[in-house]
Amino acid sequence: MARHELDPAAFEAFLTESDAPAALGTTFFDSQLGFALRRWCPPLLDLEPHCPPARYLARRRELGVREVNRRLLSAAGITDFLVDTGLPGDLTTPDELAAAAGGTAHEIVRLEHLAERTADTSRSADDFLAGLADGIREAARTAAGFKSVAAYRYGLHFEPDAPAPAAVHTAAERWLAHRAEGGAPAARVTDPVLLRHLLWSAARTGLPLQLHTGFGDPDLRLDRCDPLALTDFIRAVRPTGCSLILLHGYPYHRGAAYLAAVFPHVYADVGLSLTHTGARAGAVLAEMLELAPFGKVLFSTDAYGLPELYMVGARLFREALTGLLDQWVREGAWSSGDAGRVAALLGADNARRVYGLGSTITRDH
Amino acid sequence: MARHELDPAAFEAFLTESDAPAALGTTFFDSQLGFALRRWCPPLLDLEPHCPPARYLARRRELGVREVNRRLLSAAGITDFLVDTGLPGDLTTPDELAAAAGGTAHEIVRLEHLAERTADTSRSADDFLAGLADGIREAARTAAGFKSVAAYRYGLHFEPDAPAPAAVHTAAERWLAHRAEGGAPAARVTDPVLLRHLLWSAARTGLPLQLHTGFGDPDLRLDRCDPLALTDFIRAVRPTGCSLILLHGYPYHRGAAYLAAVFPHVYADVGLSLTHTGARAGAVLAEMLELAPFGKVLFSTDAYGLPELYMVGARLFREALTGLLDQWVREGAWSSGDAGRVAALLGADNARRVYGLGSTITRDH
Amino acid sequence: MARHELDPAAFEAFLTESDAPAALGTTFFDSQLGFALRRWCPPLLDLEPHCPPARYLARRRELGVREVNRRLLSAAGITDFLVDTGLPGDLTTPDELAAAAGGTAHEIVRLEHLAERTADTSRSADDFLAGLADGIREAARTAAGFKSVAAYRYGLHFEPDAPAPAAVHTAAERWLAHRAEGGAPAARVTDPVLLRHLLWSAARTGLPLQLHTGFGDPDLRLDRCDPLALTDFIRAVRPTGCSLILLHGYPYHRGAAYLAAVFPHVYADVGLSLTHTGARAGAVLAEMLELAPFGKVLFSTDAYGLPELYMVGARLFREALTGLLDQWVREGAWSSGDAGRVAALLGADNARRVYGLGSTITRDH
Repeated sequence: MARHELDPAAFEAFLTESDAPAALGTTFFDSQLGFALRRWCPPLLDLEPHCPPARYLARRRELGVREVNRRLLSAAGITDFLVDTGLPGDLTTPDELAAAAGGTAHEIVRLEHLAERTADTSRSADDFLAGLADGIREAARTAAGFKSVAAYRYGLHFEPDAPAPAAVHTAAERWLAHRAEGGAPAARVTDPVLLRHLLWSAARTGLPLQLHTGFGDPDLRLDRCDPLALTDFIRAVRPTGCSLILLHGYPYHRGAAYLAAVFPHVYADVGLSLTHTGARAGAVLAEMLELAPFGKVLFSTDAYGLPELYMVGARLFREALTGLLDQWVREGAWSSGDAGRVAALLGADNARRVYGLGSTITRDH
Repeated sequence: MARHELDPAAFEAFLTESDAPAALGTTFFDSQLGFALRRWCPPLLDLEPHCPPARYLARRRELGVREVNRRLLSAAGITDFLVDTGLPGDLTTPDELAAAAGGTAHEIVRLEHLAERTADTSRSADDFLAGLADGIREAARTAAGFKSVAAYRYGLHFEPDAPAPAAVHTAAERWLAHRAEGGAPAARVTDPVLLRHLLWSAARTGLPLQLHTGFGDPDLRLDRCDPLALTDFIRAVRPTGCSLILLHGYPYHRGAAYLAAVFPHVYADVGLSLTHTGARAGAVLAEMLELAPFGKVLFSTDAYGLPELYMVGARLFREALTGLLDQWVREGAWSSGDAGRVAALLGADNARRVYGLGSTITRDH
Repeated sequence: MARHELDPAAFEAFLTESDAPAALGTTFFDSQLGFALRRWCPPLLDLEPHCPPARYLARRRELGVREVNRRLLSAAGITDFLVDTGLPGDLTTPDELAAAAGGTAHEIVRLEHLAERTADTSRSADDFLAGLADGIREAARTAAGFKSVAAYRYGLHFEPDAPAPAAVHTAAERWLAHRAEGGAPAARVTDPVLLRHLLWSAARTGLPLQLHTGFGDPDLRLDRCDPLALTDFIRAVRPTGCSLILLHGYPYHRGAAYLAAVFPHVYADVGLSLTHTGARAGAVLAEMLELAPFGKVLFSTDAYGLPELYMVGARLFREALTGLLDQWVREGAWSSGDAGRVAALLGADNARRVYGLGSTITRDH
């Protein structure tokens, strides 16, 4: 979560996956996410739902970051935060975040970030690979899981198998040399051999491994982020015993649900799919619940930066799920007992089981 | 349909396309199919809807396979069974199935199965190809159609044209040699040249040809089963005069509907898409009914193994279709006369016309 | 719009994207578009909604083309017509069309058509390329925008960058030589280098550029028309300052909406997606409104040939949008003020801004 006051443009930038300002004559507040935020958040800052953005932002400044964060985060009703610590910017730590919300923090280690930090202090490929192995081993002792954004760095159409050590070494040498020449893009790990090495190294720890799939910012090519492109990797990595959590997935979330249905070690996480689709969150969640067994679907918000995104993500998930379950029970398609049980699975119990957490993830609000 | 008593694990395995037991802490009963089964089937066995799986399975054992099959099958209200006879396991014959349901049986010959049975007794490629030609000719005299599972064996991105005889001969020699070396996988036909030869041989008989498209068990790569990958094959095969029936399609069923809309010889069949999506069957069927002309959509259950799957598949189809038609008539978008006519087309008349059957496929229940 | 009387077969052919008559025993009237037409159009010709097609066609002949066109077009409530003038057949001009409807006409110049007309009178590649440059410059002075059907001619997986002049010259020479040899298909521009040259030439004028994406007639391969295949082209063309309007998109409209969300110069236009999905238009539009900011979605009908298609396209859009907005306001997800504002954006204001039109596009009806 951002620690500092945000000006209106910076605030609006958190409402979109775009890397540019809104087109002339348009605003990102005019979107399902913008409208959902204006529905749920103003009342928590003592305003009317759907009040104009300018009024909301003014009230936000009036109350101050600390108070706004406290009010919105606690209203999200999230008890356990699994936080990817590999994001840039002046953000709160997992512990600060959890403290503000009255919850518990767990770290998710972003593999590419770990590799880049390791490369920053490595003098040779050997040095780098040893440091990376240490870093992953170290992370596995305390983190709740790993995360890969290979989708952004290359796409999900990488070769499925673990790369040979010699190929990894060569790729590491090439990357470090490239980095030495400088330039920001060179600093990022984009080589598919190295990305695969990261994935396999994480998988071998047996910890859950989150994979970005589906939409995100325009750094990625969405058509290379279909989770089905992971099929052969999913097959190959199965013997390691790790669980794979496919994040987001939209608009390929039915494919993610299929993978969760046919592979025992695969899970589908709603991620930012509900937050960004607002009034349509129920329709999107329903599609994910077509093929995916109910023990295989996880809630998360993918929120960062704004406390609003935690609150809106959690609220939309509850509204969406409640709406679907009420309808199915009313139609006689589901029993109410099953509906309650499935709500607990999606909102808390599945994540608790997969990540080995002691307590529930969400509570009623 | 399975002839013998099934233990709980074997029963549950029929509720999923997965090839593995459910992940620890989860069950395939917790799925849309599981819940649909628990809605519709228990009352037919004198139990409450949504009773616990263990209670249902106990009652099933109490009544015995014969009685359970009879009750569930007759409740499905299916009058004509088009049965793929190329499935493994101790299953009832089409005639036994139809007799248990009080309906009529028609055979669908699975091409890959025919090829493999022919190869089992062939000493040479010439022998095999002659035997295969005989087998197809023979089948065409009695069967209602052919079916290909090329989707599983290779994917739908095969070359569209009929392979040259010399290429087929070479491929047959290679395959037979491979088989002679032994091993179960070698026994299966996976060579795209041979698969194309099967497809073209079937098409040239002029009989309807069913193609597996979309989801299925994890033997396939779902992203290689998009029916749109068949576009060039569809164009190439058009002059033979055969009808192509695209089965399932999910999650690419809108693409299947598109193909049914623009090519006169293409039909879209709901297959297992409704059975596995349960409470969402109406939503899935609605998507198929966006572009597909109503004379081009067919009902089927893709059921096998459990009598429950026939019952649930038929029941979900009726519920889903009735729900959509009622809504469209209520909104004034459709007339009730048209709605009734379209229901008859999808449930019986289209299949009767395409497969040349004498009587209706479903009756009211 | 067709100027002459249409016989029943010619009329029915306008209800489908197929290039062949309906399969034996079926009719294109039995489709969502057919039913939508029968809902909305008969009352305008003094008949009952949903009257039989034969009755409707008889009444149409009775009234005559002129009167039918006038009644249906004016009922569409469209004030500004952006008309692609590159379609074959005996069609009304944009001015005639607008006059019949009491609206204003604007021309959209189809790039491939311009290239082909230019080639018809060119003696050499130099001649052709100079003529083409003149034609585009000339068009840019009066037209509201350009349109490309590269989707039909090659697919959307073309190389993203502007082709080098030498490569364009060579491709032009090859095409002209091919044309000289004759044959109708040779007359069409299908070379990806030339298609890219057209796209880049248009983009450099700064005028809006429409791109066919998604479904259409069977000339195209639908799986090569996913708008996401344009991602690298979208990135490359961004510095020119042109706006890209992705037409139709179905069934990949969620991808089009994503592109509109993350790239400031990209817009998503419903095109023929609503007309052809009829009673499902609301569901399809809702999917487009998941990720796309509301300042980035445009209404159009893609109508041509039949006045019915203008009327049905406009009516379905209004019904679909009103249905969604009413629901979201009723649920409290949107405010009614926002709903009214978004309706104006989609129906008129976005198009007015993007194409620089002086007046609104639709009016209440």
